[in-house]
Amino acid sequence: MELTGEMLIGAQAVRGEDKAFKGRDAATGAELEPSYGGATTADVDRACALAAAAFGPYRATSPEVRARFLELVADKIAALGDALTDRACAETGLPRPRIEGERGRTAGQLKLFAAELREGSWQDVRLDPALPDRKPLPRPDLRLRMIPLGPVAVFGASNFPLAFSVAGGDTASALAAGCPVVVKGHPAHPATSEMVGRAVQAAVAEAGLPEGVFSMLFGIGNRLGEELVADPRIKAVGFTGSRAGGLALAKIAAARPEPIPVYAEMSSVNPVLLMPGALAARGAELGRAFVGSLTMGAGQFCTNPGLLFATPGPGLDAFVAAAGDAMGDAAAGVMLHAGILAAYQKGVERLAETRGIEQLGKGLTADGRAGAVLFGTDADTFGKTPHLAEEVFGAAGLLVRNGDWDALMPILQELEGQLTITIHMTEADEPLVARLLPVLETKAGRILVNGWPTGVEVSHAMVHGGPFPATSDSRTTSVGTLAIRRFLRPVCYQNLPATLLPEAVQDANPLRIWRRVDGVVTPPPPA
Amino acid sequence: MELTGEMLIGAQAVRGEDKAFKGRDAATGAELEPSYGGATTADVDRACALAAAAFGPYRATSPEVRARFLELVADKIAALGDALTDRACAETGLPRPRIEGERGRTAGQLKLFAAELREGSWQDVRLDPALPDRKPLPRPDLRLRMIPLGPVAVFGASNFPLAFSVAGGDTASALAAGCPVVVKGHPAHPATSEMVGRAVQAAVAEAGLPEGVFSMLFGIGNRLGEELVADPRIKAVGFTGSRAGGLALAKIAAARPEPIPVYAEMSSVNPVLLMPGALAARGAELGRAFVGSLTMGAGQFCTNPGLLFATPGPGLDAFVAAAGDAMGDAAAGVMLHAGILAAYQKGVERLAETRGIEQLGKGLTADGRAGAVLFGTDADTFGKTPHLAEEVFGAAGLLVRNGDWDALMPILQELEGQLTITIHMTEADEPLVARLLPVLETKAGRILVNGWPTGVEVSHAMVHGGPFPATSDSRTTSVGTLAIRRFLRPVCYQNLPATLLPEAVQDANPLRIWRRVDGVVTPPPPA
Repeated sequence: MELTGEMLIGAQAVRGEDKAFKGRDAATGAELEPSYGGATTADVDRACALAAAAFGPYRATSPEVRARFLELVADKIAALGDALTDRACAETGLPRPRIEGERGRTAGQLKLFAAELREGSWQDVRLDPALPDRKPLPRPDLRLRMIPLGPVAVFGASNFPLAFSVAGGDTASALAAGCPVVVKGHPAHPATSEMVGRAVQAAVAEAGLPEGVFSMLFGIGNRLGEELVADPRIKAVGFTGSRAGGLALAKIAAARPEPIPVYAEMSSVNPVLLMPGALAARGAELGRAFVGSLTMGAGQFCTNPGLLFATPGPGLDAFVAAAGDAMGDAAAGVMLHAGILAAYQKGVERLAETRGIEQLGKGLTADGRAGAVLFGTDADTFGKTPHLAEEVFGAAGLLVRNGDWDALMPILQELEGQLTITIHMTEADEPLVARLLPVLETKAGRILVNGWPTGVEVSHAMVHGGPFPATSDSRTTSVGTLAIRRFLRPVCYQNLPATLLPEAVQDANPLRIWRRVDGVVTPPPPA
Repeated sequence: MELTGEMLIGAQAVRGEDKAFKGRDAATGAELEPSYGGATTADVDRACALAAAAFGPYRATSPEVRARFLELVADKIAALGDALTDRACAETGLPRPRIEGERGRTAGQLKLFAAELREGSWQDVRLDPALPDRKPLPRPDLRLRMIPLGPVAVFGASNFPLAFSVAGGDTASALAAGCPVVVKGHPAHPATSEMVGRAVQAAVAEAGLPEGVFSMLFGIGNRLGEELVADPRIKAVGFTGSRAGGLALAKIAAARPEPIPVYAEMSSVNPVLLMPGALAARGAELGRAFVGSLTMGAGQFCTNPGLLFATPGPGLDAFVAAAGDAMGDAAAGVMLHAGILAAYQKGVERLAETRGIEQLGKGLTADGRAGAVLFGTDADTFGKTPHLAEEVFGAAGLLVRNGDWDALMPILQELEGQLTITIHMTEADEPLVARLLPVLETKAGRILVNGWPTGVEVSHAMVHGGPFPATSDSRTTSVGTLAIRRFLRPVCYQNLPATLLPEAVQDANPLRIWRRVDGVVTPPPPA
C-alpha cells in the first residue's frame, strides 16, 4: 500500500490543509515519510455530514450485513501483512511480538463483534403481549429493542496502535451497534492509522455501505478533537488516553446544547495486593513476575501495575530482592513518543524527591529511553501523600509496606477508581481477602487473583472499565462484547401494526434471537 | 398516622431547622397542617453518611431479601388506605380515581421490581470459562456481574405524588439495584411524602436492614437539592421535573470532582401525527379522544400530547370541530400548585400572542384554575417559530396543519428529543408511516399507534425515556424493569477462588438465574 499522508473522508482521500506533521521512528526519533496534513474545520464538517447521512441507511442494515462488514474489515487488516506490523513497530517502538499479538487481537475483536451481532442478545428485546381483557385497564402490545445512538467520534490511543486505534475496540463496537464512526487518528502513528483506515474504507465500499460509515481525520493540537466532540451530528465519543484529555472532551460534551455520552478510559495505577500467604509461598517468584508485567511495552499499558501493597516480612524481602535483581537486568524501554518519555521522567523525579520514598530497584538506562524504577514507602507516608496514588504512565512502581490490612482499609477506600485490582494470595489468605473484597469491588472494574493485570482478554465477561477517574463512565466497558451497549438506547413500540415492526421484535422472530417475552427469557424458534 | 412535619433520617424522625413551609390544598390554596421544617446542611450530611454506611451491608443482601423488602414497602403503602389518597388528592388537586390508580401502580411497581430481582437477568451475568490450553495464551476464568453504584438521590416529582415520588419508580429501581436512597420530598405534597416515607422507614426496620437504606429530606429553594447532588457519597441521581431543574442538577453532577450520572426526565411535547387515513375514518372520534388525553389531570403528564401534525381536509375539519366541542365542555383544571398554574398561563398567553397562531378551542375557565386550550397553525409558521415546539406544561395543545408529509420530514428531524411520538393511522397510511418511522425512532423513546401517550404501562418492554431534552440520558428508561440498569455497573472477576465468588457467578448458580456462558444464553439448573 502506498502511503499518501491523506485523510479519509467517506470514499475520498483528502490532503489535510491544516498544520502538517510526520510520524517518527520511536526508537531513533527520526521523522518518517509521508507528511500528514491536518483537518480543517471544513473537513470535520464534511466527515460529520457524511456520517449523519450514512446513519439512517447503515442502522437499517441487518445484523448479518454488519457482521459480514466487520469480518471484511478484519480480513483486510490481516491482509496488510508485514507492512502494517513493520510500520506500527517503527512508529510506536513496541516490540514485534506485541504488535503481532495486537494485530491478532484487533481482527479477533472485529470477528467477536460479528458473532455478537448474530447472537443478538445485545438488542435486549422484550415483548409484553397485549392483555386486552385486563382490568381495570387493558395492556397494550409493547415491544422494546435497542437502536444505535448515531455517529460516534473515536479517538485513537497512542499505546494500542491497532487494538485501540482506527479499527480498535471503540470503532468495532460502534460499527457493530450501527453507528457510523469518525476517527481522529493518533498523530504518533499516522501511517499505521492510514493503512488500517484504508482497509476500513475499502471494506465499506466492498460491502456496499454508505461512504459516511467511516472517516478518519488527522490533526495535531486540540482543535480537531474539540470540534469533533462539539459537532451536533456526533452522538457519542470513545476515547482512550490521558486524564487531562478525557476530562477536556467530557467537559465539551457536557456543555453542548445536546450533551452526549463520553466513554473516556483515562488513568489507573492498578493496585496489586500481595497477601502474606502469597509472599511467604513465592515472594521471589512474584517479584520477578511483577517486573515482567511492569516493564512490558515500557509500562505503557492502561492496566500497568503501578502500585503494590504488601505485608512486611521475609516473603516481602524476597520479593523486593528478586524484583530489584530483575529490574537491574531490564533494558531501557523505547517510549511511544517524546512527550510520554518526558512526562514519565518528570513523574519519576517527583517520586524520587518525595520525602519518605526510597528506591528499591532501577532498570538499565539509555539516552532517549525510559529506565524502569521501583520505589518503596510505608502505608503511613502513602496515606499522607496524595500524589503517590497518581499514575506515572510507564514502568514505574511504588511498593507500600503495610503491616495491618484492616488499618489499610480506609486508605483503600480513599483510592480513586481503578481499571483493575490484583490480589496475590493463597488459601490461607482467603479470610483476609474476603474482608477486603467488598471494598475492592467498589474501586475497580476488574478484580483478578494470582495473575497480572496487563493482558486484557477480549471476551463476553471482560470489563475494561471502572469508577471515575479510571473511566468517565463506570457503567460500561471498552473491551469485550458488553462494549456495544455504550452506543445503544432503548425504543418501545406500542401497538405498532405487525407490518411496520422491525425484525428484532416481530412475532416470528426472524433474527432467531433470545428475547424476554412477558418477562420470561425465551429461546429463538428452532432452525 | 399522625403527621408531624418531620423529615426521616435513617431510623429517626427529625424536625428540620431550615425554612419551614406548609402544603396547600391545591383546589383552594388553603394551607394544610402540619408545617414542615427544611433540611440543614448538617441534615444532608447525616442522611448521606447513613446512606454510605448502609451501602455495603445493603448491597450484600440477596436479591430475595431485597425483593421481600420491596414487597413490604408495597404492603405498607397499601395499608395507608384512604388517609393517603385523601391527603394526596388534597395536596395535588388530582382526581381521586387518578390517585387511586397511581397508588395501585406504585405498589405494583414495587412488586414488579421484586419479581425482577428474583428473575435475575438484571445481573447480566456472563461466565467465560478458563481455557488453560489455548495457544498462544491461555484464557483466564472470567465472570461478570452487575453491582450497584452506591447511594442515590431521588427527587420526588410534583405531578406523580406516589408513582414518581418518595417510593416511586426511581426509588424502587434504585433500592432493587442495591442502592440506598436519599429522597428530596417534593414540597407541593409534603404530607403525602411523609406518609409514604414513614411506610418505607418502617419497612426498613421490619426487614432488619441498615437504617441508612432510606432517608427523606424536605426543603424549599434549591440549596437542599444542590447539596445532595454535590455530596461525594451520592453516586447517581433520579429526577422528574422541569428542564431548568434537571439541567441545573446535571450541571452540578458534571462539575463534581467525581462526576455522576443524572437521570433527569425533563420535558416533552409528545407529538401526535394524524395520518390522512385515520382522519378520514374517524376524525371526530379522534378529536374527542385527544381532548380527553390532553385534559387528563389538567394536562400535567410528562406524556401529555401537546403538539399535533395533521393533514388538512374534511377529516381534520371533523377532528377540529369535535375537539373544539369537547374542549368547550372541559372543566377548568386544578393545577398542582400556584407556580405551575402561573407558568401555564404565561405559556398560553405567549402562544396566543404569536403571529400565525389561531385559537381552535377553549375549555371552561374559573378563578385559580387552568382552562384547556387548543391552538392551530400551519407547518410553515411552525418551522419558522422555534418556541412553538416548547413544552407548555398543562392542557395546551397546538395543531399544525401539514399538507405534505415528506416536506414535513425536515421539521420532524429538527424536533427536540421526546418521550413519545403517537401515530394515528389506518392500513392505508402504512406506506407513509413506514417512511416516517426511521426519523421518529431517532426522536423518541416510545412510538405508539392508535392510542394516546398518557398512561404509561409499568412492564418489561416499556421505555419512558428518550433523546435529550426529554431526558438527560437517552440510554435508559425511568419506567419499567429496565430502569434498574441505571444504577448498576459491571465488575469482572478473573481467576477468583470459588470460595470467594459472589453467588450470582458461582458455578452451581445458586440464584438459579439465566446467564451467558461462553457467550451462550444458558438456563438455570432445574429446581
